[in-house]
Amino acid sequence: MNVCDVIEAKKRREELSEAQTEFFVRAVAEGSASDAQIAAFCMAVCMGGMTDEECARLTFAMQRSGKVAPRPAIAGVCADKHSTGGVSDSTTLVLVPVLASLGVCCAKYSGRGLGHTGGTLDKLESFPGLRVDLTPAQFEAQVRRIGAAVAGQTGEVVPADKRMYAVRDVTATIDSIPLIASSVMSKKLASFADVILLDVKCGEGAFMRTPEEAEKLARLMVRIGRRAGRRVLAAVTAMDSPLGDAVGCNAEVRDAVEVLRGKENGLSALSLFLASVLLRQAKGISAAEAEEAVRACIASGAAFGKFKEIVAAQGGDARAADDFSLLPLAPRVREVRSGAAGYLTVSALALGRACAALGGGRKRPEDGIDHAVGIVLHRRAGEFVHKGELLAQIYYREKSEEAFALAEGAFGTRAQPREGRLVYSLIEEA
Amino acid sequence: MNVCDVIEAKKRREELSEAQTEFFVRAVAEGSASDAQIAAFCMAVCMGGMTDEECARLTFAMQRSGKVAPRPAIAGVCADKHSTGGVSDSTTLVLVPVLASLGVCCAKYSGRGLGHTGGTLDKLESFPGLRVDLTPAQFEAQVRRIGAAVAGQTGEVVPADKRMYAVRDVTATIDSIPLIASSVMSKKLASFADVILLDVKCGEGAFMRTPEEAEKLARLMVRIGRRAGRRVLAAVTAMDSPLGDAVGCNAEVRDAVEVLRGKENGLSALSLFLASVLLRQAKGISAAEAEEAVRACIASGAAFGKFKEIVAAQGGDARAADDFSLLPLAPRVREVRSGAAGYLTVSALALGRACAALGGGRKRPEDGIDHAVGIVLHRRAGEFVHKGELLAQIYYREKSEEAFALAEGAFGTRAQPREGRLVYSLIEEA
Repeated sequence: MNVCDVIEAKKRREELSEAQTEFFVRAVAEGSASDAQIAAFCMAVCMGGMTDEECARLTFAMQRSGKVAPRPAIAGVCADKHSTGGVSDSTTLVLVPVLASLGVCCAKYSGRGLGHTGGTLDKLESFPGLRVDLTPAQFEAQVRRIGAAVAGQTGEVVPADKRMYAVRDVTATIDSIPLIASSVMSKKLASFADVILLDVKCGEGAFMRTPEEAEKLARLMVRIGRRAGRRVLAAVTAMDSPLGDAVGCNAEVRDAVEVLRGKENGLSALSLFLASVLLRQAKGISAAEAEEAVRACIASGAAFGKFKEIVAAQGGDARAADDFSLLPLAPRVREVRSGAAGYLTVSALALGRACAALGGGRKRPEDGIDHAVGIVLHRRAGEFVHKGELLAQIYYREKSEEAFALAEGAFGTRAQPREGRLVYSLIEEA
Repeated sequence: MNVCDVIEAKKRREELSEAQTEFFVRAVAEGSASDAQIAAFCMAVCMGGMTDEECARLTFAMQRSGKVAPRPAIAGVCADKHSTGGVSDSTTLVLVPVLASLGVCCAKYSGRGLGHTGGTLDKLESFPGLRVDLTPAQFEAQVRRIGAAVAGQTGEVVPADKRMYAVRDVTATIDSIPLIASSVMSKKLASFADVILLDVKCGEGAFMRTPEEAEKLARLMVRIGRRAGRRVLAAVTAMDSPLGDAVGCNAEVRDAVEVLRGKENGLSALSLFLASVLLRQAKGISAAEAEEAVRACIASGAAFGKFKEIVAAQGGDARAADDFSLLPLAPRVREVRSGAAGYLTVSALALGRACAALGGGRKRPEDGIDHAVGIVLHRRAGEFVHKGELLAQIYYREKSEEAFALAEGAFGTRAQPREGRLVYSLIEEA
């Protein structure tokens, strides 16, 4: 068997055997398959698809290409949440302290953003001094002590995925359901969470454009998780308009802190929904009980207190959660005002691109990111606005006509309000 | 526009515009497209196809990626023949001297073999001293003087094709009709021949397995040629059994010389058929007249004389054409005998692989090749053979069980003769 034979089989739309899959993934991980061969393979999967069985085999082979960390001796249930990616999605910042304050451990390995805006780690680093490069021992000790830690993954958890993702990123082979499912699940199964909740985004700002596609991806990932003997659930949620009221690292951290202090918006609605699903699973309580507990920990300030505890535990200046002057926005401000009266539409994708054009995203993993630039929304999608009304403020350092045009083009109005759903479905059974 | 956008469009099975095609091919030629991006593009074309219009655009863009040599001031019609590749196919060695002896110029740029056996240049280099690295001035002068030259292409005629072919070779993306058509035609249109005859092989030993597929490829290439305003014809011919009586450089040169001296076999039949098609086109005579002229130049020895003239003009020892001891076969010989009585079947592909295993092929362009190893056939496909009869001799240096097994497995017998056709069709109109 050689790498070409496996690519040839996939080109002919054949179902790969376990031996073929293992062989190919090992060649990817060990470097004997070239980038060109990986690209040809990924394109063949994009265009020819994979059976569920085949995709599960690919996932497990990828997972085995790295080291699987043993579950540390942490009492109680460990929960994990993974989002397939969206703009203004800071749910992790809200969900982790909520669950930890309710006694569900969150040992969360997160990523940096590759795309329009920063990732969870970038956002956390808005806090002066905060470190995300915890050693496994530090990470575990923090989880034991305060019930939560959010850190970057040390070493290569799934080396085959790392290479494949880098190739897919530049060869138009990202948006394939079996490739996304195997990439996400190979990493999730390598973590030690007892319950895993996948937040599968759909809409203009996500890889999956329709709820139907997103549900297909969600069901496939849940099935793969169950096949591996893990408790995996998935929610299909909307990503057309920004989830919260901000785009950009510091702006999104402020928004998340406000949600933890009781503000209600799309971010709070989704974060608390996802937290209650995980809480219900972890504690074996009813949905109503879980929702009530989640609401209560926000109202009591327990979740906000836990958030500051996590920030402080990782070396960050937790005072910034109370004093936003420590989370500075960029010095120059440009206003976006409504060009017409009507029900507001806001494109998450356009605002994400605008943020990237301001310097608030990265194109390559080694790029830096500007935490202080971003867009703060004053009105939300679906609200009625008058002509000339203030819609948003752009915080910038260098004038960027591209960013301004993108941000301004992100807003529109409609004569009728559009029905907006936040959660399309929750998949609990494979 | 960026390279990813073009790949994305092809992945979605969209027809590429002229601007997209130009952009992509330029990125390939200039190096800004990575091998992985080329691989993804080629796989998308393999699986999604291309319209004829689109394939013509790709061909012309590739052709423009290099320098098109102006037609030198050579009197009379210049002819070119191109084969899509097969085992034991030495037609060029026969056809070039035949046409040149009849006053049709053959200014032939050839390739080295990448695959089972040597290419035309490798075979010619069997002649001690013969050089194929002629400068354009030497090449042109030789054509003027004796009506023919066979040389390797200097510099990069079609750099985009060179990169794409190298990637396709290792990514299972060779056997795509639009990719083969654009690769072949971009190079053929960059030459200055007035009449171009394409020999499109079909069968077990060729990229196209069926006459239908081969005819599709042939028609597409003829249409592209006509669209470029050139006289292009194509023959669809069989490549199941070896064409001649030998596989391997020196053995094939001996076989071609014997054909030029009057021996009749599959090689003579195909070479003389192709030569007569080109002669008819070049001179505007009837098919019967052309066939008669071709037969006559063999019978008179004129073609053989012209062959020796070409060998000598390129610095080779033309005595080897009369004295085969100067074209040595490898020192050790193994016989292959028939295991049963019946009508013989011979697999060109298996013999090609056997030759490669003996060291008579190359895997990478920089590899050397052993001219002296090969297989000489004593009986031909379709003939009735008795059990134990001598079928072939393997000339080898180092014992290779793999090569022996492949060579022995290449022969079989049938109870009934199989109808064998050499030429399936001749396509003269687009």
